[in-house]
Amino acid sequence: MGAWTRIFFSLCNTDCSVKLLCDNICCKKHYINKIYLLLITVEDYEQAAKSLLKALFIREKYSKLAYHRFPRTTAQYLNSVLLFLINFVPSNHCADICPCPHKGEDPYSMNDIPENLDFELKMRDGIIYVYDNAEALSKNRPRCLPYPDLETFAMDLSHVLAMIADGPTKTYCHRRLNFLGSKFYLHEMLNEMAELKELKGVPHRDFYNVRKVDTHIHAAACMNQKHLLTFIQSTYKTDAERVVLDKAGQRLTLKQVFNNLNMDPYDLTVDSLDVHAGRQTFHRFDKFNSKYNPVGASELREIYLKTDNHIKGEYFARLIKEVAHDLEESKYQHAEPRLSIYGRSPEEWESLSHWFIQQKVHSPNMRWIIQVPRIYDIFKSRKLIANFAKMLENIFLPLFEATVNPQKHKELHVFLKYVTGFDSVDDESKHSDHMFSYKSPKPEQWTTDDNPPYSYYLFHMYANIMVLNNLRKERGLSTFQFRPHCGEAGSITHLVSAFLTADNISHGLNLKKSPVLQYLYYLAQVPIAMSPLSNNSLFLEYSKNPLREFLHKGLCVSLSTDDPMQFHYTKEALMEEYAIAAQLWKLSTCDLCEIARNSVLQSGLSHQEKKHFLGADYLKDGPEGNDIRRTNVAQIRMAYRHETLCNELSFLVDAVKSEVLGSQPE
Amino acid sequence: MGAWTRIFFSLCNTDCSVKLLCDNICCKKHYINKIYLLLITVEDYEQAAKSLLKALFIREKYSKLAYHRFPRTTAQYLNSVLLFLINFVPSNHCADICPCPHKGEDPYSMNDIPENLDFELKMRDGIIYVYDNAEALSKNRPRCLPYPDLETFAMDLSHVLAMIADGPTKTYCHRRLNFLGSKFYLHEMLNEMAELKELKGVPHRDFYNVRKVDTHIHAAACMNQKHLLTFIQSTYKTDAERVVLDKAGQRLTLKQVFNNLNMDPYDLTVDSLDVHAGRQTFHRFDKFNSKYNPVGASELREIYLKTDNHIKGEYFARLIKEVAHDLEESKYQHAEPRLSIYGRSPEEWESLSHWFIQQKVHSPNMRWIIQVPRIYDIFKSRKLIANFAKMLENIFLPLFEATVNPQKHKELHVFLKYVTGFDSVDDESKHSDHMFSYKSPKPEQWTTDDNPPYSYYLFHMYANIMVLNNLRKERGLSTFQFRPHCGEAGSITHLVSAFLTADNISHGLNLKKSPVLQYLYYLAQVPIAMSPLSNNSLFLEYSKNPLREFLHKGLCVSLSTDDPMQFHYTKEALMEEYAIAAQLWKLSTCDLCEIARNSVLQSGLSHQEKKHFLGADYLKDGPEGNDIRRTNVAQIRMAYRHETLCNELSFLVDAVKSEVLGSQPE
Repeated sequence: MGAWTRIFFSLCNTDCSVKLLCDNICCKKHYINKIYLLLITVEDYEQAAKSLLKALFIREKYSKLAYHRFPRTTAQYLNSVLLFLINFVPSNHCADICPCPHKGEDPYSMNDIPENLDFELKMRDGIIYVYDNAEALSKNRPRCLPYPDLETFAMDLSHVLAMIADGPTKTYCHRRLNFLGSKFYLHEMLNEMAELKELKGVPHRDFYNVRKVDTHIHAAACMNQKHLLTFIQSTYKTDAERVVLDKAGQRLTLKQVFNNLNMDPYDLTVDSLDVHAGRQTFHRFDKFNSKYNPVGASELREIYLKTDNHIKGEYFARLIKEVAHDLEESKYQHAEPRLSIYGRSPEEWESLSHWFIQQKVHSPNMRWIIQVPRIYDIFKSRKLIANFAKMLENIFLPLFEATVNPQKHKELHVFLKYVTGFDSVDDESKHSDHMFSYKSPKPEQWTTDDNPPYSYYLFHMYANIMVLNNLRKERGLSTFQFRPHCGEAGSITHLVSAFLTADNISHGLNLKKSPVLQYLYYLAQVPIAMSPLSNNSLFLEYSKNPLREFLHKGLCVSLSTDDPMQFHYTKEALMEEYAIAAQLWKLSTCDLCEIARNSVLQSGLSHQEKKHFLGADYLKDGPEGNDIRRTNVAQIRMAYRHETLCNELSFLVDAVKSEVLGSQPE
Repeated sequence: MGAWTRIFFSLCNTDCSVKLLCDNICCKKHYINKIYLLLITVEDYEQAAKSLLKALFIREKYSKLAYHRFPRTTAQYLNSVLLFLINFVPSNHCADICPCPHKGEDPYSMNDIPENLDFELKMRDGIIYVYDNAEALSKNRPRCLPYPDLETFAMDLSHVLAMIADGPTKTYCHRRLNFLGSKFYLHEMLNEMAELKELKGVPHRDFYNVRKVDTHIHAAACMNQKHLLTFIQSTYKTDAERVVLDKAGQRLTLKQVFNNLNMDPYDLTVDSLDVHAGRQTFHRFDKFNSKYNPVGASELREIYLKTDNHIKGEYFARLIKEVAHDLEESKYQHAEPRLSIYGRSPEEWESLSHWFIQQKVHSPNMRWIIQVPRIYDIFKSRKLIANFAKMLENIFLPLFEATVNPQKHKELHVFLKYVTGFDSVDDESKHSDHMFSYKSPKPEQWTTDDNPPYSYYLFHMYANIMVLNNLRKERGLSTFQFRPHCGEAGSITHLVSAFLTADNISHGLNLKKSPVLQYLYYLAQVPIAMSPLSNNSLFLEYSKNPLREFLHKGLCVSLSTDDPMQFHYTKEALMEEYAIAAQLWKLSTCDLCEIARNSVLQSGLSHQEKKHFLGADYLKDGPEGNDIRRTNVAQIRMAYRHETLCNELSFLVDAVKSEVLGSQPE
């Protein structure tokens, strides 16, 4: 038995640089099953492996359809299974590599806009279909693009849902995750100094000048509280007599607005501004949301934090440009702010892109994500929309139109160059009575006042983005990533929906609660933008945040600020986020640089930029994909991560092969 | 019994603004003893009260002698005991109120230097004695100044030492501290919103623009790692050919220095600079100390972080001035950096003051503290000094000379205007075999190679500062506070020595371990500069740091950075320190502003400055001493603190009175 136990501690099949405890123990493939005999029966192991592989195949399918990313290593292992079982490997999955707006060129230029195609567009079952012409439309023969199939999706979803509750799979994943944790601990003890030595040897590169992307930040809260305060005071100095608000026909100057609030902006303080989250917001998302109103006054939010107001969003644009200026000054920091599209009316896109271009909001250090709040119920109760399909149409139809006929929608066409993805936002802890399945009402039939559940939102957003991406790809235009908020609170089923539909997610806290999902997110290397300071004010105390644990196990996590206005104190919100994580969890420089590298990978930055920031071969997995002179991540670390992932994947593949071959352990 | 229990929860005798649970319960004095009957016998209570009062009397005595501060409220209660017992109140204790260098005046001006007095000076038993003339010296008739008496001091010390181990006193203090903690918790629950409302009503003042003093920071580590790196690179650009080092006659240019280190400064990174503390420094003060050497090279420390080198400390001065410039820009931040005097030779003072004045290091946002490392053993083993008295003489005699004959020591005289205190530094966890008592060898007889114990250092530093302060007061010159590092590690007896001798201390972590000392530090409101990020890297994990607990109980704590070079990540080290504490401990704005106010009180800033920063009546205790428009601390908080302290003190006084009167509880 001693030998088996020792083998259980043997950590890699292909150990090279990673010198771990038992280098010399021969770890032949056929021993592997033996290992599991110590913990789990062969049948259970094979069952778990099959389920996990199936889940990975499902994610790969949906990723492929939407031009989302899927890690090469995992894809290779999946291919090896296919090759073994059916002697066939499908064509290579090719994720979209975002094109980059060229340097030096006018970012708002309206030249070189592609021709109109005059396709017909029509929403059916909540999904936009594309028709070559009116005839095709009348015959209902949509253009040959992949359209999602709700029934299949519902089956896939229920497969993964069933599997996260399956006993043997849970045991297997739980043990593998524990193992990954302990293995990293060993790695750290043995290799920490070697990693540090590698980093010391890298000239001119340290944590301060590796690229970091703030992968999750809301534009309306991207400045810190002090910045907003100073900005409000400065506008009052110059613009007191300017008409800034049109309240149902009543035009008010800035001075009148403050008079009505009974307040002198000079006396304003961070305390009276009251936008910072405190102890009062913990588990109170409602209170938190109202913090977006400076001094609790929605007028000020309207004036300073909206794009579509009486002053044409000028103040909001100026604020954002000040934040962008700081990022450009810092040189090494980037951000992906969220701007809102609500789906209340089809004009929102035009208005937003007009604001973007007129106010010249573009910055080379920013890429934009569109967030869609899940607030159908509010619009419905206010009778702004008739059914859920209308909301979807308002959100997506303008994008299809701009893609088909860019000449007709020049501003939107240009704006979309800088938009890299979609986010789905709202309080996840809100419960929904409805259970999404293929029997659920179609969006056109969703006419109740109730809000559709999370999965329903996610599927329909994914479906439209997927069709849109295929259409845009055809035209050689940029595609979009789906990057929803997910797993911040509420049911863990949210994380199942996102596993199928999302390129990457924000938060992911609830992965703590499901070993199967956590292990799947690890195997598929789904990037997770985590914001422990935000969580600390809203849902989970800092000391209980799983970021450190996820990082150690090898999940692809990045650090992000979420809302500097509500959470941060210093002028450098992202650095504050890193500093606190580093101090509290005693992260090493290599840890920090690994997180920073993850943030660039996760981001919607272009292929060109990623090559520049991470190294020419960044798309390759393992150490050969890492240019230490740019990332400051030790090669030992990269090798460790790669070998560990290969090891986990090969266990799964071996289980399937050995079952088919009927091979038994000795 | 119900009534008594309820009374135990009645928190204040003189509740006004503080609305707590049981406003209406009549809490007559004679009930008080009853309360303790529930927990402790009357005899034990009286015994504990007497011990505690005696300890407070002792601290008051030593504070008075050295012109240190003692809180008015506590002094009043002590006076009431004296009045009751012996019908006598001694003259008022008058702490020194540091004079302020006038604004606008040349800070280095050598005009208006007082006349020489030509007193004679002589060290005896490690203490400098002052003689009016040679005749008085020959007859050994020192000038009439208070000189400390070792025997009394040793007795006082042993009294407090005995008392911290006394069972009933420990129980009493432990219970009172628990009570203070719970009471604050109630206060917080009931008054948090009211405090916040008060703060919102204060115009133009918030946490960002209240004054904060970094009460504990070492000059040689006052810049962050990135700042030092950039500075080194910038000097190399302009000064590569400059001779910067004279190594035993061998003169080296900056280029040669880096060549010898086999290093190109352009390639230097924060990693290779290697001055940041990491996991490796935890409980390894030795490793931490070596982090003061950039790239592990003592040459670079010599060139960049020393005042007395071949380039006359120019680089070090420029670095400090850059840090000072940032503080001046921030306007609301101040710092009290430590500069070293070692006691190796009597020329150190002259050299340091020459550097200060030639390099024009003064900044209105900085006041200077002299740190004396406790490293007699090193000098002795290198045969640099013959005995401990020589070290003391090297440290203190030049100060006496500059005080007696300022015309002869003009530079030192001017420098001392900006020096506000002394610090005693080194690794406290080092054990000493010697137990300090009145039988200990006199400093002249301390000729062994062993280092004297902590208390021995403290007494002799205190003694000399005390005499010096009295001499300087006589001449109308500024006096010095003794502000040793204390209670960071090692024996808790350190905290006893400091309770007698220090105006205030840095660290104080070990107060966690002694309820009696913690309660005494509370009653005497001894300021404590705490640095949880420093502790987190060296001695105590952040989550276990007692700062929050101390603050809540009402100890006078401030936040300080200790060594930004080793511990901090952002450009704003002090704000980083506040931000992390605020986030992790969910401190309210009122908490943060209370800490900031404490930091100003603790600091060596002048009376004028404190009046400006805290309000004209800042010397008064309780809400009337607080100007909320300047401090942003709620009056409810101030009232709570004051009433709570009065309540604790009156319990002690009542115990003594009731014992004398023989009054028994009903």
